[in-house]
Amino acid sequence: MSSFMELALQEAARAGVRGEVPVGAVLVEAATGVVLASAGNETEALTDPTAHAEIMVLRAAAAKVRTPRLEACDLYVTLEPCAMCAAAISFARIRRLYFGAYDPKGGAVEHGPRFFTQPTCHHRPELYGGIEEQRASALLKEFFASRR
Amino acid sequence: MSSFMELALQEAARAGVRGEVPVGAVLVEAATGVVLASAGNETEALTDPTAHAEIMVLRAAAAKVRTPRLEACDLYVTLEPCAMCAAAISFARIRRLYFGAYDPKGGAVEHGPRFFTQPTCHHRPELYGGIEEQRASALLKEFFASRR
Repeated sequence: MSSFMELALQEAARAGVRGEVPVGAVLVEAATGVVLASAGNETEALTDPTAHAEIMVLRAAAAKVRTPRLEACDLYVTLEPCAMCAAAISFARIRRLYFGAYDPKGGAVEHGPRFFTQPTCHHRPELYGGIEEQRASALLKEFFASRR
Repeated sequence: MSSFMELALQEAARAGVRGEVPVGAVLVEAATGVVLASAGNETEALTDPTAHAEIMVLRAAAAKVRTPRLEACDLYVTLEPCAMCAAAISFARIRRLYFGAYDPKGGAVEHGPRFFTQPTCHHRPELYGGIEEQRASALLKEFFASRR
């Protein structure tokens, strides 16, 4: 498995420990393999409804490279992105999107709006889903089971 | 016209002067009419692909009231929200969404994914579109014409 998805899974696990939905993301400069940003969900800690892991790494990486366009970058995330994150990934012009578990309830890549297939989507990354989906999914299941 | 949409149009115009796509948003506590946040697009200034006007006001208001859930709030925005912003509006549980111009190229309320109609959308605000759409649209047309 990609070490980047491993790092994303670690971020997801850490988010769960903090009481956040355990999803993690890593943003990588494709040519060099340099990790520009990694994060877990932070919606509760930051009281920010937009603070999904993907948004956190897109914002951090764009601030670091000083441009909102990250054409040369790949994003690894442990869960199929929602519509908010899928659209943000498109705006940032991410080259490749690697994701873990599929999310029939809230995903927007293979489910619901299937954002990247819409005529209103103006940049579509290469898509690779289902990477380490069992581990990514187990983190989420354990988290929600422990909260019941 | 609502003074909140007037304020959103002012934010849009100011964004255009800064070289940002002229879209403005205002977030209002419905019961009191208190403006919790108002902003224009800031994607270029902040080098942040997520810094649409709607995201800016959602984040600012949620930080101010110290919760990511803004059930008692209404959002005014000069342009039909994209998928990123529509999903963020849903996550924030905004009560009513008032928007100006329709956006067939990038909108996600009446166009493309029609996010709020998706089974993966778990909160749908009341929707009021086309408010002062001519003025909102004129700002955008002038902006893009001046850049050609």
